[in-house]
Amino acid sequence: MRVSAYAAPSAGQPLAPTTIERREVGAHDVLIAIEYAGICHSDIHTVNGDWGPQPFPVVPGHEIVGTVTEVGAEVTRHRVGDRVGVGCMVGSCGECDSCRNGDEQYCARGMIGTYAVTDRDGTTTQGGYSTHIVVDADFVLTVPEGLDPAAAAPLLCAGITMYAPLRRWGAGPGTRVAIVGLGGLGHMGVKIAHALGAEVTVLSQSLKKQEDGLRLGADHYFATSDPDTFEALAGSFDLIVNTVSAAIDVNSYLGLLAVDGTLVNVGAPPEPLPVNAMSLIGGRRSFAGSMIGGIALTQEMLDFCAEHGIVSEVELIAADQVNEAYERVLASDVRYRFVIDASTLA
Amino acid sequence: MRVSAYAAPSAGQPLAPTTIERREVGAHDVLIAIEYAGICHSDIHTVNGDWGPQPFPVVPGHEIVGTVTEVGAEVTRHRVGDRVGVGCMVGSCGECDSCRNGDEQYCARGMIGTYAVTDRDGTTTQGGYSTHIVVDADFVLTVPEGLDPAAAAPLLCAGITMYAPLRRWGAGPGTRVAIVGLGGLGHMGVKIAHALGAEVTVLSQSLKKQEDGLRLGADHYFATSDPDTFEALAGSFDLIVNTVSAAIDVNSYLGLLAVDGTLVNVGAPPEPLPVNAMSLIGGRRSFAGSMIGGIALTQEMLDFCAEHGIVSEVELIAADQVNEAYERVLASDVRYRFVIDASTLA
Repeated sequence: MRVSAYAAPSAGQPLAPTTIERREVGAHDVLIAIEYAGICHSDIHTVNGDWGPQPFPVVPGHEIVGTVTEVGAEVTRHRVGDRVGVGCMVGSCGECDSCRNGDEQYCARGMIGTYAVTDRDGTTTQGGYSTHIVVDADFVLTVPEGLDPAAAAPLLCAGITMYAPLRRWGAGPGTRVAIVGLGGLGHMGVKIAHALGAEVTVLSQSLKKQEDGLRLGADHYFATSDPDTFEALAGSFDLIVNTVSAAIDVNSYLGLLAVDGTLVNVGAPPEPLPVNAMSLIGGRRSFAGSMIGGIALTQEMLDFCAEHGIVSEVELIAADQVNEAYERVLASDVRYRFVIDASTLA
Repeated sequence: MRVSAYAAPSAGQPLAPTTIERREVGAHDVLIAIEYAGICHSDIHTVNGDWGPQPFPVVPGHEIVGTVTEVGAEVTRHRVGDRVGVGCMVGSCGECDSCRNGDEQYCARGMIGTYAVTDRDGTTTQGGYSTHIVVDADFVLTVPEGLDPAAAAPLLCAGITMYAPLRRWGAGPGTRVAIVGLGGLGHMGVKIAHALGAEVTVLSQSLKKQEDGLRLGADHYFATSDPDTFEALAGSFDLIVNTVSAAIDVNSYLGLLAVDGTLVNVGAPPEPLPVNAMSLIGGRRSFAGSMIGGIALTQEMLDFCAEHGIVSEVELIAADQVNEAYERVLASDVRYRFVIDASTLA
């Protein structure tokens, strides 16, 4: 099946319209007519070659929402007409400890990413900047009714990336949570942490987005460019989720944690981060990392978001605006996520 | 009350016999006739000035076992004749969150260390290399019958330093625990982790102490000088407790952790440790720190050790051997803890 898509022809080159082949719908597969695809910073890193050589042409996109148009003979989980989503994974071994624990993202044999990796059948996966996609039904999420489908797309990556650490480290009533960075990830973190009942503080470089942050659910907003912030907030958070991929001064942030507090990175700066052991020992603190979330947890997150009316703040664009959108993401000029209207791809 | 002691007269100078003043026994105090005092690496760091200027003369020693010879009017917790212990703390504010949570070591106003810090009354605390000590009854532990008092002394610091992280991060049946370094701390870690029911691996620089390690309760023993170790054991521990104070390659050790695993430092090398965020993110791993343990937990540890017949492996020395013992500790030439027989101080 030949379908329309937007692909990066080689590292650093602008994306351009093309067609790609989607596989036959197998017994366990679902064919999805894509309606919306979010633009994640990872898409840009990948096509720019920041993360090493890629199997170009690459069709990015792992924040996918669409409608089921065909299901394989063995599929019971989804039906034609269902509104569904696909995130960062389209497969895993299903047999290792992580897969059995619902942590497919940590599959011992490596999860199969939604684009730019080798699938089980030897083909290269291609992502959501496309009109259609064929995905193993076990990796297809149900998008609950009531969620705006365009604004729900970023939940599939940004949403679960924030929901997973917030749940894992117990964000809820009585906990004090800080979100570092108010971008695509951070703004989801604020909404979700607030809905979980935590007291939420945004730590952003400046106060430029303060009004937004408070509107989205933050109780407090501080500028990290102001050194007083680190003094004023010393020892005052149970959990800090750092969404900033640039290198931060980890020890300064560890100093903001209460006893037993955890700083979780969801982004990975390329350079090592120097950690003073005393920053950890002096308060039984932890520096941790978290990567997206398993399929069951992603469904839980979608249901939670539907219950609490949480979606991403999005700017809908046509496919031919994708290169411009990339520039704006790199310039942090987006509030807070670009989503491609896939009807403009056809 | 004037009592005999061994003190460092100034930074880096040999310890020498002296006398020091102990305060009157207050209403909440206990007077202890010291029988044994362990030698902790911290004692050496302190008197050598490694941790900054100190209020010399300094009497080190925070692994103290003795007998109660007098109690204040308000003391109900201990009686004359009781065998008791004192660890690294002799006071804290008692009012902050940490104190109320039983984490006196993280007292917001700073715990009062057993030596070389300013006590509430403005005097400088002096430690256990001495014939007697007067301590607030709330910071005096009960040493259960059946524990050899000399070999129990190191439990008060080394024992709780290892017990606290093993308990906090869930060492027990079905968990795979590695102890890095088989010294004063490490050998206690092996015994305690084994008694808690964990599968215990020692990661030591060489295989020199392998026989000892297995005798003490380790199930496996690997040399970290062998690069194959890091390949063979990749992803295989739930918890690693690092007792080595020298800088280690944190990322190599993080690579030994399973998904959700934690590497806990109980020592603090002076230089920052470079951490690759991807080492954490790629398995939802944590790098944490832990410092001794609260009073209630220390009592729990002593009771646990009595129940399981756990004490330290000690070499008993006379007070006038303390300088030589320091040299041997620095040369890692001790299996596994020196303990001063306080009767040689009188």
